[in-house]
Amino acid sequence: MADLVLTTFDWVPETPRGYVRDLRVRWALEEAGLPYRVESTPFRERTAEHFAHQPFGQAPWLTDGDLSIFESGAILLHLGERSATLLPVDPHGRSDAIEWLFPALNSVEMASLPWSLFKFSGDTDDTSGWRLFDQFLKARLQHMEPVLAGREWLAGTFSVADILMADVLRLVDRFDGLANYPACRGYVARATARPAFAKAHADQMAHFAAAV
Amino acid sequence: MADLVLTTFDWVPETPRGYVRDLRVRWALEEAGLPYRVESTPFRERTAEHFAHQPFGQAPWLTDGDLSIFESGAILLHLGERSATLLPVDPHGRSDAIEWLFPALNSVEMASLPWSLFKFSGDTDDTSGWRLFDQFLKARLQHMEPVLAGREWLAGTFSVADILMADVLRLVDRFDGLANYPACRGYVARATARPAFAKAHADQMAHFAAAV
Repeated sequence: MADLVLTTFDWVPETPRGYVRDLRVRWALEEAGLPYRVESTPFRERTAEHFAHQPFGQAPWLTDGDLSIFESGAILLHLGERSATLLPVDPHGRSDAIEWLFPALNSVEMASLPWSLFKFSGDTDDTSGWRLFDQFLKARLQHMEPVLAGREWLAGTFSVADILMADVLRLVDRFDGLANYPACRGYVARATARPAFAKAHADQMAHFAAAV
Repeated sequence: MADLVLTTFDWVPETPRGYVRDLRVRWALEEAGLPYRVESTPFRERTAEHFAHQPFGQAPWLTDGDLSIFESGAILLHLGERSATLLPVDPHGRSDAIEWLFPALNSVEMASLPWSLFKFSGDTDDTSGWRLFDQFLKARLQHMEPVLAGREWLAGTFSVADILMADVLRLVDRFDGLANYPACRGYVARATARPAFAKAHADQMAHFAAAV
Protein backbone atom coordinates (compact mmCIF):
# COMPACT_ATOMS: atom_id res chain seq x y z
CA MET A 1 0.00 0.00 0.00
CA ALA A 2 1.28 3.43 -0.90
CA ASP A 3 2.34 5.75 1.85
CA LEU A 4 -0.38 8.27 2.69
CA VAL A 5 0.94 11.59 3.99
CA LEU A 6 -1.42 14.31 5.17
CA THR A 7 0.13 17.78 5.32
CA THR A 8 -1.48 20.51 7.40
CA PHE A 9 -0.39 23.77 9.02
CA ASP A 10 2.21 23.68 11.81
CA TRP A 11 0.06 26.09 13.82
CA VAL A 12 -3.20 28.03 13.55
CA PRO A 13 -4.83 30.65 15.84
CA GLU A 14 -7.18 29.42 18.57
CA THR A 15 -10.47 30.24 16.78
CA PRO A 16 -10.29 27.77 13.87
CA ARG A 17 -8.82 24.92 15.93
CA GLY A 18 -11.05 21.88 15.69
CA TYR A 19 -12.38 23.21 12.34
CA VAL A 20 -9.29 23.17 10.10
CA ARG A 21 -10.06 21.06 7.06
CA ASP A 22 -7.40 18.45 7.72
CA LEU A 23 -10.05 17.16 10.16
CA ARG A 24 -12.14 15.90 7.24
CA VAL A 25 -9.20 13.93 5.91
CA ARG A 26 -8.17 12.58 9.32
CA TRP A 27 -11.77 11.53 9.90
CA ALA A 28 -11.96 9.64 6.60
CA LEU A 29 -8.59 7.96 7.20
CA GLU A 30 -9.70 6.89 10.68
CA GLU A 31 -13.02 5.55 9.40
CA ALA A 32 -11.23 3.51 6.76
CA GLY A 33 -8.42 2.39 9.04
CA LEU A 34 -5.88 3.44 6.40
CA PRO A 35 -2.37 4.01 7.79
CA TYR A 36 -1.06 7.56 7.36
CA ARG A 37 1.28 10.07 8.82
CA VAL A 38 0.92 13.82 9.34
CA GLU A 39 3.43 16.46 8.30
CA SER A 40 3.43 20.19 8.89
CA THR A 41 3.85 23.23 6.65
CA PRO A 42 4.41 26.74 8.03
CA PHE A 43 1.24 28.78 8.60
CA ARG A 44 3.00 32.12 8.90
CA GLU A 45 5.29 31.84 5.89
CA ARG A 46 3.71 29.91 3.03
CA THR A 47 6.50 28.33 1.03
CA ALA A 48 6.84 27.80 -2.71
CA GLU A 49 6.57 24.07 -2.03
CA HIS A 50 3.26 24.73 -0.27
CA PHE A 51 1.86 26.56 -3.31
CA ALA A 52 3.11 23.75 -5.56
CA HIS A 53 0.90 21.33 -3.61
CA GLN A 54 -1.96 23.72 -2.78
CA PRO A 55 -2.25 26.69 -5.19
CA PHE A 56 -4.38 28.73 -2.76
CA GLY A 57 -1.89 28.41 0.09
CA GLN A 58 -4.44 26.56 2.20
CA ALA A 59 -4.29 23.23 4.01
CA PRO A 60 -4.46 20.29 3.84
CA TRP A 61 -3.08 18.32 0.96
CA LEU A 62 -2.53 14.58 0.73
CA THR A 63 0.17 12.65 -1.06
CA ASP A 64 -0.47 9.05 -2.08
CA GLY A 65 2.66 7.69 -3.71
CA ASP A 66 3.47 10.11 -6.52
CA LEU A 67 0.00 11.72 -6.51
CA SER A 68 -0.50 14.97 -4.62
CA ILE A 69 -4.12 16.03 -4.07
CA PHE A 70 -5.58 19.22 -2.61
CA GLU A 71 -9.11 20.30 -1.57
CA SER A 72 -10.85 18.19 1.04
CA GLY A 73 -13.54 17.05 -1.42
CA ALA A 74 -11.00 15.78 -3.95
CA ILE A 75 -9.01 14.03 -1.22
CA LEU A 76 -12.11 12.33 0.19
CA LEU A 77 -13.21 11.18 -3.25
CA HIS A 78 -9.73 9.74 -3.80
CA LEU A 79 -9.78 7.94 -0.45
CA GLY A 80 -13.27 6.68 -1.22
CA GLU A 81 -11.84 4.81 -4.20
CA ARG A 82 -9.59 2.96 -1.78
CA SER A 83 -12.14 1.93 0.84
CA ALA A 84 -15.66 0.52 0.72
CA THR A 85 -16.11 1.97 4.23
CA LEU A 86 -15.93 5.43 2.66
CA LEU A 87 -17.78 4.84 -0.62
CA PRO A 88 -20.41 2.13 -1.24
CA VAL A 89 -19.51 -0.36 -3.96
CA ASP A 90 -22.99 -0.89 -5.41
CA PRO A 91 -23.49 1.48 -8.38
CA HIS A 92 -26.47 3.39 -6.98
CA GLY A 93 -24.99 3.86 -3.52
CA ARG A 94 -21.70 4.90 -5.05
CA SER A 95 -23.41 7.38 -7.39
CA ASP A 96 -25.46 8.82 -4.50
CA ALA A 97 -22.42 9.24 -2.25
CA ILE A 98 -20.36 10.95 -4.96
CA GLU A 99 -23.32 13.15 -5.88
CA TRP A 100 -23.74 14.38 -2.30
CA LEU A 101 -20.11 15.51 -2.09
CA PHE A 102 -21.05 18.37 -4.39
CA PRO A 103 -24.03 19.93 -2.59
CA ALA A 104 -22.08 19.63 0.67
CA LEU A 105 -19.27 21.74 -0.81
CA ASN A 106 -21.28 23.90 -3.17
CA SER A 107 -25.00 24.45 -2.46
CA VAL A 108 -24.60 24.24 1.33
CA GLU A 109 -21.04 25.38 2.14
CA MET A 110 -21.30 28.23 -0.35
CA ALA A 111 -24.07 29.57 1.89
CA SER A 112 -22.73 28.47 5.27
CA LEU A 113 -19.20 29.79 4.90
CA PRO A 114 -20.16 33.40 4.04
CA TRP A 115 -22.63 33.23 6.93
CA SER A 116 -19.86 32.00 9.23
CA LEU A 117 -17.53 34.76 8.01
CA PHE A 118 -20.15 37.31 9.09
CA LYS A 119 -20.44 35.52 12.44
CA PHE A 120 -16.66 35.36 12.92
CA SER A 121 -16.34 39.04 12.04
CA GLY A 122 -19.13 39.93 14.48
CA ASP A 123 -20.69 42.00 11.69
CA THR A 124 -24.24 40.71 12.11
CA ASP A 125 -26.00 43.99 12.67
CA ASP A 126 -29.09 44.59 10.63
CA THR A 127 -27.24 45.34 7.40
CA SER A 128 -28.51 44.32 3.98
CA GLY A 129 -25.36 42.20 3.45
CA TRP A 130 -25.98 40.18 6.59
CA ARG A 131 -29.67 39.74 5.82
CA LEU A 132 -28.83 38.54 2.29
CA PHE A 133 -26.51 35.80 3.54
CA ASP A 134 -28.67 34.84 6.50
CA GLN A 135 -31.56 34.25 4.09
CA PHE A 136 -29.25 32.44 1.67
CA LEU A 137 -28.24 29.94 4.36
CA LYS A 138 -31.79 29.48 5.66
CA ALA A 139 -33.02 28.71 2.13
CA ARG A 140 -30.52 25.88 1.91
CA LEU A 141 -31.10 24.51 5.44
CA GLN A 142 -34.84 24.52 4.81
CA HIS A 143 -34.24 22.01 2.01
CA MET A 144 -31.64 19.94 3.91
CA GLU A 145 -34.06 19.50 6.82
CA PRO A 146 -36.53 17.11 5.06
CA VAL A 147 -33.61 15.26 3.44
CA LEU A 148 -32.01 14.57 6.81
CA ALA A 149 -35.33 13.92 8.56
CA GLY A 150 -35.86 11.03 6.15
CA ARG A 151 -32.56 9.19 6.36
CA GLU A 152 -29.73 8.35 8.72
CA TRP A 153 -26.95 8.98 6.17
CA LEU A 154 -27.02 10.74 2.82
CA ALA A 155 -26.29 7.70 0.64
CA GLY A 156 -28.02 5.07 2.78
CA THR A 157 -24.88 3.97 4.57
CA PHE A 158 -22.23 6.26 6.07
CA SER A 159 -19.86 7.63 3.41
CA VAL A 160 -17.44 10.44 2.65
CA ALA A 161 -20.47 12.56 1.73
CA ASP A 162 -21.49 12.50 5.40
CA ILE A 163 -18.02 13.55 6.52
CA LEU A 164 -18.25 16.64 4.32
CA MET A 165 -21.89 17.51 4.99
CA ALA A 166 -21.62 16.97 8.75
CA ASP A 167 -18.45 19.04 8.95
CA VAL A 168 -20.06 21.85 6.94
CA LEU A 169 -23.16 21.86 9.16
CA ARG A 170 -21.04 21.56 12.32
CA LEU A 171 -19.62 25.04 11.71
CA VAL A 172 -23.17 26.42 11.44
CA ASP A 173 -24.07 24.62 14.66
CA ARG A 174 -21.09 26.27 16.37
CA PHE A 175 -22.93 29.59 16.00
CA ASP A 176 -26.28 28.01 16.89
CA GLY A 177 -27.51 28.33 13.32
CA LEU A 178 -29.25 24.93 13.39
CA ALA A 179 -31.59 25.74 16.28
CA ASN A 180 -34.65 25.64 13.99
CA TYR A 181 -33.45 22.59 12.06
CA PRO A 182 -33.64 19.61 14.42
CA ALA A 183 -32.95 16.99 11.76
CA CYS A 184 -29.78 18.86 10.74
CA ARG A 185 -28.71 19.11 14.39
CA GLY A 186 -29.44 15.45 15.00
CA TYR A 187 -27.40 14.52 11.94
CA VAL A 188 -24.39 16.53 13.15
CA ALA A 189 -24.71 14.94 16.60
CA ARG A 190 -24.94 11.45 15.06
CA ALA A 191 -21.93 11.99 12.81
CA THR A 192 -19.71 13.58 15.44
CA ALA A 193 -20.54 10.77 17.91
CA ARG A 194 -18.57 8.37 15.71
CA PRO A 195 -15.26 7.24 17.25
CA ALA A 196 -13.37 8.18 14.08
CA PHE A 197 -14.55 11.80 14.39
CA ALA A 198 -13.51 11.93 18.06
CA LYS A 199 -10.07 10.57 17.20
CA ALA A 200 -9.62 12.99 14.29
CA HIS A 201 -10.74 15.96 16.37
CA ALA A 202 -8.51 15.06 19.32
CA ASP A 203 -5.56 14.54 16.98
CA GLN A 204 -6.04 17.93 15.33
CA MET A 205 -6.32 19.68 18.69
CA ALA A 206 -3.18 17.92 19.94
CA HIS A 207 -1.31 18.77 16.74
CA PHE A 208 -1.95 22.50 17.09
CA ALA A 209 -1.48 22.45 20.87
CA ALA A 210 1.99 20.96 20.37
CA ALA A 211 3.00 23.81 18.03
CA VAL A 212 5.52 26.31 19.31
CA MET B 1 -26.10 3.86 -24.91
CA ALA B 2 -28.45 4.97 -22.17
CA ASP B 3 -30.76 7.87 -22.85
CA LEU B 4 -29.41 11.11 -21.38
CA VAL B 5 -32.09 13.60 -20.36
CA LEU B 6 -31.18 17.05 -19.06
CA THR B 7 -33.96 18.79 -17.13
CA THR B 8 -33.87 22.55 -16.60
CA PHE B 9 -36.38 25.29 -15.84
CA ASP B 10 -39.13 26.07 -18.33
CA TRP B 11 -38.42 29.79 -17.92
CA VAL B 12 -36.14 32.11 -15.92
CA PRO B 13 -36.04 35.92 -15.63
CA GLU B 14 -33.84 37.85 -18.09
CA THR B 15 -30.90 38.47 -15.72
CA PRO B 16 -29.65 34.87 -15.24
CA ARG B 17 -30.20 33.83 -18.87
CA GLY B 18 -26.97 32.57 -20.32
CA TYR B 19 -25.75 31.73 -16.79
CA VAL B 20 -28.20 29.04 -15.64
CA ARG B 21 -26.22 25.96 -14.68
CA ASP B 22 -27.73 23.70 -17.29
CA LEU B 23 -25.21 25.50 -19.52
CA ARG B 24 -22.36 23.56 -17.88
CA VAL B 25 -24.07 20.27 -18.65
CA ARG B 26 -25.03 21.26 -22.20
CA TRP B 27 -21.40 22.36 -22.75
CA ALA B 28 -20.01 19.03 -21.55
CA LEU B 29 -22.51 17.05 -23.63
CA GLU B 30 -21.64 19.08 -26.74
CA GLU B 31 -17.89 18.65 -26.15
CA ALA B 32 -18.33 14.90 -25.82
CA GLY B 33 -20.81 14.60 -28.68
CA LEU B 34 -23.13 12.57 -26.45
CA PRO B 35 -26.75 12.50 -27.64
CA TYR B 36 -29.24 13.98 -25.17
CA ARG B 37 -32.57 15.66 -24.96
CA VAL B 38 -33.77 18.57 -22.82
CA GLU B 39 -36.92 18.62 -20.71
CA SER B 40 -38.44 21.42 -18.67
CA THR B 41 -39.64 21.73 -15.10
CA PRO B 42 -41.74 24.69 -13.88
CA PHE B 43 -39.72 27.61 -12.47
CA ARG B 44 -42.65 29.30 -10.75
CA GLU B 45 -44.17 26.24 -9.08
CA ARG B 46 -41.54 23.73 -8.01
CA THR B 47 -43.17 20.31 -8.01
CA ALA B 48 -42.69 17.36 -5.66
CA GLU B 49 -41.10 15.50 -8.57
CA HIS B 50 -38.64 18.37 -8.92
CA PHE B 51 -37.57 18.08 -5.27
CA ALA B 52 -37.30 14.31 -5.64
CA HIS B 53 -34.65 14.88 -8.33
CA GLN B 54 -33.10 18.08 -6.93
CA PRO B 55 -33.61 18.51 -3.16
CA PHE B 56 -32.83 22.27 -3.28
CA GLY B 57 -35.41 22.98 -5.96
CA GLN B 58 -32.72 24.16 -8.34
CA ALA B 59 -31.84 23.13 -11.88
CA PRO B 60 -30.53 21.19 -13.67
CA TRP B 61 -30.56 17.49 -13.07
CA LEU B 62 -29.59 14.70 -15.45
CA THR B 63 -31.03 11.24 -15.82
CA ASP B 64 -28.90 8.50 -17.32
CA GLY B 65 -30.98 5.32 -17.54
CA ASP B 66 -32.20 4.72 -13.99
CA LEU B 67 -29.67 7.10 -12.40
CA SER B 68 -30.76 10.66 -11.56
CA ILE B 69 -27.96 13.09 -10.72
CA PHE B 70 -28.09 16.68 -9.47
CA GLU B 71 -25.46 19.42 -8.96
CA SER B 72 -23.46 20.45 -12.00
CA GLY B 73 -20.20 19.12 -10.52
CA ALA B 74 -21.63 15.67 -9.90
CA ILE B 75 -23.18 15.57 -13.37
CA LEU B 76 -19.92 16.60 -15.05
CA LEU B 77 -17.94 14.01 -13.11
CA HIS B 78 -20.47 11.38 -14.19
CA LEU B 79 -20.25 12.44 -17.84
CA GLY B 80 -16.46 12.47 -17.55
CA GLU B 81 -16.58 8.75 -16.80
CA ARG B 82 -18.29 8.28 -20.16
CA SER B 83 -15.99 10.34 -22.38
CA ALA B 84 -12.22 10.70 -22.68
CA THR B 85 -12.91 14.12 -24.23
CA LEU B 86 -14.16 15.26 -20.82
CA LEU B 87 -11.74 13.43 -18.51
CA PRO B 88 -8.21 12.29 -19.43
CA VAL B 89 -7.65 8.54 -19.23
CA ASP B 90 -4.05 8.59 -17.96
CA PRO B 91 -4.07 8.34 -14.14
CA HIS B 92 -2.30 11.65 -13.45
CA GLY B 93 -4.36 13.68 -15.91
CA ARG B 94 -7.52 12.06 -14.61
CA SER B 95 -6.57 12.76 -11.00
CA ASP B 96 -5.71 16.39 -11.85
CA ALA B 97 -8.97 16.98 -13.69
CA ILE B 98 -11.09 15.50 -10.89
CA GLU B 99 -9.10 17.45 -8.31
CA TRP B 100 -9.75 20.78 -10.06
CA LEU B 101 -13.52 20.25 -10.04
CA PHE B 102 -13.41 20.92 -6.32
CA PRO B 103 -11.59 24.28 -6.16
CA ALA B 104 -13.76 25.48 -9.05
CA LEU B 105 -16.89 24.78 -7.00
CA ASN B 106 -15.54 25.40 -3.52
CA SER B 107 -12.48 27.65 -3.12
CA VAL B 108 -13.34 29.86 -6.10
CA GLU B 109 -17.14 29.76 -6.50
CA MET B 110 -17.62 30.04 -2.75
CA ALA B 111 -15.97 33.46 -3.08
CA SER B 112 -17.29 34.46 -6.50
CA LEU B 113 -20.95 33.70 -5.91
CA PRO B 114 -21.33 35.84 -2.74
CA TRP B 115 -19.46 38.58 -4.61
CA SER B 116 -21.88 38.24 -7.52
CA LEU B 117 -24.87 38.31 -5.16
CA PHE B 118 -23.65 41.68 -3.88
CA LYS B 119 -23.21 42.84 -7.48
CA PHE B 120 -26.65 41.59 -8.52
CA SER B 121 -28.24 43.25 -5.49
CA GLY B 122 -26.42 46.52 -6.26
CA ASP B 123 -25.39 46.64 -2.61
CA THR B 124 -21.73 47.44 -3.21
CA ASP B 125 -21.48 50.61 -1.17
CA ASP B 126 -18.58 50.83 1.19
CA THR B 127 -20.05 48.47 3.77
CA SER B 128 -17.95 46.04 5.79
CA GLY B 129 -19.92 43.12 4.29
CA TRP B 130 -19.08 44.12 0.74
CA ARG B 131 -15.41 44.75 1.60
CA LEU B 132 -15.17 41.33 3.27
CA PHE B 133 -16.41 39.50 0.19
CA ASP B 134 -14.55 41.67 -2.28
CA GLN B 135 -11.31 40.82 -0.45
CA PHE B 136 -12.35 37.17 -0.23
CA LEU B 137 -12.71 36.94 -4.01
CA LYS B 138 -9.51 38.87 -4.71
CA ALA B 139 -7.55 36.52 -2.44
CA ARG B 140 -8.69 33.58 -4.54
CA LEU B 141 -8.17 35.24 -7.93
CA GLN B 142 -4.69 36.28 -6.90
CA HIS B 143 -3.83 32.58 -6.59
CA MET B 144 -5.67 31.51 -9.74
CA GLU B 145 -3.75 34.07 -11.80
CA PRO B 146 -0.32 32.33 -11.69
CA VAL B 147 -1.99 28.93 -12.18
CA LEU B 148 -3.72 30.09 -15.36
CA ALA B 149 -0.72 32.11 -16.56
CA GLY B 150 1.25 28.86 -16.62
CA ARG B 151 -1.07 26.53 -18.49
CA GLU B 152 -3.68 26.46 -21.22
CA TRP B 153 -6.06 24.11 -19.37
CA LEU B 154 -6.15 23.05 -15.73
CA ALA B 155 -5.30 19.37 -16.22
CA GLY B 156 -3.04 19.76 -19.26
CA THR B 157 -5.75 19.02 -21.81
CA PHE B 158 -9.28 20.47 -21.81
CA SER B 159 -11.56 18.68 -19.32
CA VAL B 160 -14.73 19.06 -17.28
CA ALA B 161 -12.65 21.00 -14.74
CA ASP B 162 -12.27 23.77 -17.32
CA ILE B 163 -15.99 23.84 -17.99
CA LEU B 164 -16.65 24.47 -14.30
CA MET B 165 -13.77 26.88 -13.65
CA ALA B 166 -14.38 28.90 -16.82
CA ASP B 167 -18.10 29.16 -16.09
CA VAL B 168 -17.41 30.26 -12.51
CA LEU B 169 -14.93 32.93 -13.66
CA ARG B 170 -17.24 34.00 -16.52
CA LEU B 171 -19.79 35.29 -13.98
CA VAL B 172 -17.05 37.36 -12.33
CA ASP B 173 -16.04 38.69 -15.74
CA ARG B 174 -19.64 39.73 -16.38
CA PHE B 175 -19.21 42.31 -13.61
CA ASP B 176 -15.69 43.20 -14.80
CA GLY B 177 -14.13 41.51 -11.78
CA LEU B 178 -11.25 40.04 -13.80
CA ALA B 179 -9.88 43.38 -15.03
CA ASN B 180 -6.72 42.99 -12.93
CA TYR B 181 -6.32 39.29 -13.69
CA PRO B 182 -5.36 39.00 -17.38
CA ALA B 183 -4.57 35.27 -17.25
CA CYS B 184 -8.01 34.57 -15.77
CA ARG B 185 -9.64 36.75 -18.45
CA GLY B 186 -7.66 35.06 -21.21
CA TYR B 187 -8.68 31.66 -19.88
CA VAL B 188 -12.38 32.59 -19.91
CA ALA B 189 -12.01 33.96 -23.46
CA ARG B 190 -10.21 30.78 -24.57
CA ALA B 191 -12.82 28.48 -23.04
CA THR B 192 -15.84 30.39 -24.27
CA ALA B 193 -14.40 30.53 -27.82
CA ARG B 194 -14.91 26.77 -28.07
CA PRO B 195 -17.73 25.78 -30.46
CA ALA B 196 -19.32 23.57 -27.80
CA PHE B 197 -19.69 26.55 -25.47
CA ALA B 198 -21.25 28.66 -28.24
CA LYS B 199 -23.72 25.88 -29.05
CA ALA B 200 -24.61 25.35 -25.37
CA HIS B 201 -25.06 29.07 -24.78
CA ALA B 202 -27.21 29.58 -27.88
CA ASP B 203 -29.34 26.56 -26.97
CA GLN B 204 -29.95 27.85 -23.44
CA MET B 205 -30.90 31.31 -24.72
CA ALA B 206 -33.26 29.77 -27.29
CA HIS B 207 -34.78 27.48 -24.66
CA PHE B 208 -35.72 30.38 -22.37
CA ALA B 209 -36.70 32.67 -25.26
CA ALA B 210 -39.19 30.02 -26.40
CA ALA B 211 -40.85 29.94 -22.96
CA VAL B 212 -44.30 31.46 -22.66
